[in-house]
Order: sequence, then structure tokens, then C-alpha cells
Amino acid sequence: MKNLLFLVALVFMISCQDQNSEAPEAVEPTNTPEQTSEFAIVIHGGAGTILKENMTPELEKEYNAKLTEAIQTGHEILKNGGSSMDAVEAAIRVMEDSPLFNSGKGAVFTHDGINSLDASFMDGATLNAGAVAGVTTVKNPISLARKVMTDSEHVLLSGDGADAFAKALQDPNIEIVSNSYFYTENRFKGLQRVLEKEAEMEAEKQMTEPKTTALRQLELKDPYFNDSKYGTVGCVALDKNGNIAAGTSTGGMTNKKYGRIGDAPIIGSGTYANNATCGVSSTGHGEYFIRAQVAYDISALIEYSGLTLKEATDKVIQDKLVKLGGTGGVVALDHYGNVSMDFNTPGMYRAMMNDKGDLIVGMYKD
Amino acid sequence: MKNLLFLVALVFMISCQDQNSEAPEAVEPTNTPEQTSEFAIVIHGGAGTILKENMTPELEKEYNAKLTEAIQTGHEILKNGGSSMDAVEAAIRVMEDSPLFNSGKGAVFTHDGINSLDASFMDGATLNAGAVAGVTTVKNPISLARKVMTDSEHVLLSGDGADAFAKALQDPNIEIVSNSYFYTENRFKGLQRVLEKEAEMEAEKQMTEPKTTALRQLELKDPYFNDSKYGTVGCVALDKNGNIAAGTSTGGMTNKKYGRIGDAPIIGSGTYANNATCGVSSTGHGEYFIRAQVAYDISALIEYSGLTLKEATDKVIQDKLVKLGGTGGVVALDHYGNVSMDFNTPGMYRAMMNDKGDLIVGMYKD
Repeated sequence: MKNLLFLVALVFMISCQDQNSEAPEAVEPTNTPEQTSEFAIVIHGGAGTILKENMTPELEKEYNAKLTEAIQTGHEILKNGGSSMDAVEAAIRVMEDSPLFNSGKGAVFTHDGINSLDASFMDGATLNAGAVAGVTTVKNPISLARKVMTDSEHVLLSGDGADAFAKALQDPNIEIVSNSYFYTENRFKGLQRVLEKEAEMEAEKQMTEPKTTALRQLELKDPYFNDSKYGTVGCVALDKNGNIAAGTSTGGMTNKKYGRIGDAPIIGSGTYANNATCGVSSTGHGEYFIRAQVAYDISALIEYSGLTLKEATDKVIQDKLVKLGGTGGVVALDHYGNVSMDFNTPGMYRAMMNDKGDLIVGMYKD
Repeated sequence: MKNLLFLVALVFMISCQDQNSEAPEAVEPTNTPEQTSEFAIVIHGGAGTILKENMTPELEKEYNAKLTEAIQTGHEILKNGGSSMDAVEAAIRVMEDSPLFNSGKGAVFTHDGINSLDASFMDGATLNAGAVAGVTTVKNPISLARKVMTDSEHVLLSGDGADAFAKALQDPNIEIVSNSYFYTENRFKGLQRVLEKEAEMEAEKQMTEPKTTALRQLELKDPYFNDSKYGTVGCVALDKNGNIAAGTSTGGMTNKKYGRIGDAPIIGSGTYANNATCGVSSTGHGEYFIRAQVAYDISALIEYSGLTLKEATDKVIQDKLVKLGGTGGVVALDHYGNVSMDFNTPGMYRAMMNDKGDLIVGMYKD
């Protein structure tokens, strides 16, 4: 009898030709293919070892306030009929301008003691996209990523070239700053602690084994600063016209070397948006997010396997990524206004708002 | 009756739980889920406006000879029980060392008159991957991409940092050269012609409309040099142990500016490999290949929609990419040893060999 029902459900699914109908294996889908919210917005401020016992009440309050400010900024735009692209850019700029997050002001330091920023932006209506990697003089990299999308024929610009592109724009929205603008004492001390640890490890190694090459430094895994891998901000929004946009911005890893590029500026890994499926912004150990194609994979599971948004983010974050050994999370929403905030780390700074103005702000695993 | 058969086929498909069985909509699948070749290798040397009427018999002979040499180099490794990773690296090195292709020696010139190279490499057994963007002193970028995968904890390194990583390796297989090594007269003249054309266009613009910013230069679309967007080399191989590897290497676009990064070093766009599905190497207008997630999308269509390799490459190259406006092609193979060489341009330099030693070399649309 169960099999028969299953069969009927399958035939129905196929006759509907609806790519977004429920997956046959979903007994109790958590999202339904009905409009749950006319518009919606979701943000993250990074995932990692975020534990209540390590947080002071003051810092908790600061994070709560800034996440609330960021999401309300985007929500206001959507409520007034603005575009999801404007909402995503505005919400991310609030977080970039805050030293609380590893993006823009407050970004972590590279091995060479500078701040080097990555960002990406995608328009789900056109599948157009823009991204920058390794910019050092642009106050709001998310705005530059959007400009790469709209004002160049390219998707990804890097290094000094991306800074030169920013300067050539002569756009008041793309503010050029000196690299020292990004300096914060906390992040600079963070780099110093990693460098000290690295020197200790190097000294230990030289006592016990033959002198290794500089490459060994790349393998540094410092438990104290593991979190520096996860600091990223991101936003996904659905507007009243049914358009989805997504963006991600980061300062990358503390002590990054060799021009390392993580997943944040990589379309399909750090950011993806498609009106037909969903929008996604990632935060986590970037190398695994690239290998697992995290952002696009969630969209593909919805489009090709008929999973709901919640099922798709769970599959990727709690199953596929875990099997690879990757840690982090995503915020995502689909064209029905369903929202998912999914992570496999102890915590993720996050917030969401729907068309009723309901606000959820979170940090820890509930 | 037809519907009933369809239903039976569906039930069978689900009861088998075989992700790679035929798609229900495939009436006459071109590939079957049976081992067609114990091992196989396929390469490309770029796609674009490759037309017989523009080719001299001498040049045609040279391309044929070099494609044959490259694929036989890889095939020999597979035949002797070597790994798909070794075969991919060796075949691509042959093409990188030849001035016929836009990779390694013979790479196109950037706006600043240098050669800047990108490459990526992926191991389908572990989903591990490595890539480099904008290296200027490494003779064989594909070997460096493989080293990023095996000798660092990163996936993507860029610019001077990637060159520094190469130097630190002190590996005889990673030969450091001066940038002038990559110089070829043809490619240098190619840049000069683009720059002249650009200056003409700029002069025309200034006569007819207000002075535009430097950004407008990015929008240059020169029909004479359109092909310079497509020059890339790539290889995918399946070895006797069932392991798939894929790699891609390119000099990018003639006259590229602002540190532009195309799809070649982007895992999921330019290169993807997964033993469970397939391996893919792309060549084409990189921006569209990033937006369309070309390489991973082919894998996802096999894994989630049950398409055959041929159906999946056709869907992506002849349908989805065309709708976006993207031109180019892919070479791909699956774990059954099926091979696909699919492109929507007038031609693609390509070759394939199977376990019987059958060799196919092609350039034009058949």
C-alpha cells in the first residue's frame, strides 16, 4: 500500500513537470511549495566555535545589535519594494563597516601584515555575477563585486588589478581607502599570536626532524585561531518581484600566504543565486566549500532531485560536507520565501526576517 | 502502454538505487551504464572559430601531430597501469610546451604585455583539488596546480604568491622560468593588433560621445580576436583502477586587464572530477562557464537527474550555456569509460583514445 502511494506520488510529480515539487523520498517535508513569505532576507556573520561560555554579555549584545541593524537595513529596502540586490548590498555593507566581523573594517591580517579582501555577488534573475579577490584599498568589497557584475564583462577580478578597476570607476559608492583603514588591534594581535605559534612550531620541528621547506608553514593548524578561517559575512534576499540575490564578503584567513583565495569570491562555492531555485551564501573552511561546490550544489539538489530548500541545505552541510571533513554553514532562501540557516559548527552569527517583520537573531546551536 | 513501460522503467530505476542509471526521459540513450572501456583519455586544445578554410595544410598537420603526441603520452601511462592523475598532467604538459596552444609556451599576452597563466587539477577519487591563477614564472602551471593540491592545505593560490609557492617547492618538476620564456611572436603581434583596434575604437568614441572611463575598454569586443578567449588546454582520464582525474591550463584572454580570472582555475567551472560521476575540462568564454557552473553541472545532471554523460554534456553545452549566451566546449568522460567531446563553436581541437588504442583526432564540426 505504501509502495502504491509512493508510485502515485511519483506519477503525480512527473505529470506536474514541476522541478520544485517535493522529493519522492521526503516523507515529512519541512518546506512546502507554497509562498510562505512575499519577500525575505537572511544574513550570516560567520560560523565557527561560537560558544556562550566564551562570550561576554557585552559582546553578545554588540553582535545582536549589529546583526539586527544589518538585517533591518536590508528588510526596509525589500518592504518598500526595493530590489533584492540593493537589500543584499546594503545589509552586507553594515557588517563590512563593523569591526565585529571578518570583512571590511576588522578583516583579519595576512602573513605580510596587510588586509586583503574577497567578495562576490550574484543576481538570480539573470545569473549574472561579479567577484573580487585580494583587494586592499576598497572600503566595501561587496559593492565592488556588484560593479564587476554590472560595469565589466568579467566575473572575477583579482589583486592590484581589482583595486585599479575600483579606482577607475570613480564612483562615490566605491570608496577608496588606505589599507590602514582596515586595521583593528584585535585582528593585528591575532596575527601576532599565530606568527609566534608558527615560530614555536618551526623551532620544534628543526630540533626533531630535518629542516623542512617553507611549504610546511602552510600546514599550520592552530586550534586557537581555527575560527579565523570562518569569519565571513553574507546575505541572501528575495524581493517582491520574485528576484533572488546573494552576496558574500570576507577578509579570508588570518596569516594567509601565497595569494590564497578561499570560497568567498568563487561563484558556486561561496555565493549562488537563481530565481528558479534559491540563493545561498556560505561561511566556513573555504577549501572544502570549493571542493564540495556548496552553494551551487544546494541549487542543483533543488532543481534536479526535487529536494526542498531545507532538505538540500541539510544534505550538503550536515552530510556531504561532513563526509569531506569540511566545517561551516550557509544561509539560503528559495523563491517561495522559505529560509534556511544551516551549520555544522558550534555556532553561526545569523539573522532572518520575513514579510511579516518577524525577526530571528541567533549565534549558538539551539 | 508507453506510459506503463515508462512507469515500470521508473520503478526499476528507483529499486536499483543506481544514481547513474538512464534518465527516464531518455528514449534512446547514447551511452549505456556498462563498462565501454577499461581506461580512456580525452584532451582538448581550445574551442573557437576553427574553420578549415582558415587553416593551412601545414598548420593542420602540426595540430594533428601535437594533439596525437599529447594523447599518446597520457594513453601510454594508462596502458601501463599508471594513474589518471599522471596521465592528465603528462598530456597537458605536452600541450603547455607547444606554442600552438594558449597555455604555457605560446600563452597570449595581457594588457601589460606579460604572460599570466592559470591552471587547475582535480582528483576524482578524493575530490581533492588544486589551482593557480596569474602565475608568471612557472613553465608548467598544471604541475603547480597539482602541487597546490598535494603539498598545501589550499585549493587556489594566486599572483606573486603562487609564484613564491612554486619557488619554495624546490621541485625539479616545477621549473621556474623568466616570463620571457612564454614569448611567441604570433601572440605578441596578437596583442599589438588588439591594442591598435582598442585605440581606434577609443578615438572614435571620443569623437561621437563624452569621454568615457577606462572601464569602457573592458567592453572591447574584437571579432578578429574573439578566439583568444577560447584558447585553453585540458585533459580528463580514467585509469585501470577506476580513478578519474581532470586538469585545465590556459594563458587566458589576450589583452586581459584588472587581474581578470577566467574559469580555467575555478573548480566546478573549468575543471571537475568525481569517480562517482565523471571528469570534465572546459574551454570557452570563461565568464559564462563560471556563471553556468559548467563542469560541476555536468556531474550534477548525471548524479541527480540520472542523465548519461552524453546527455549531460549536451544539456549544458548545447542548451543551458547557449541560453546564457556562452560559447565553448568540454571534454568529459565517465566511470564507464564513455567519452564526450561537446562544443557549440565552429571547432574544437580535440582527441580521444580508449583501451583498444582507437584514436580520434578532430578540429572542426563533423
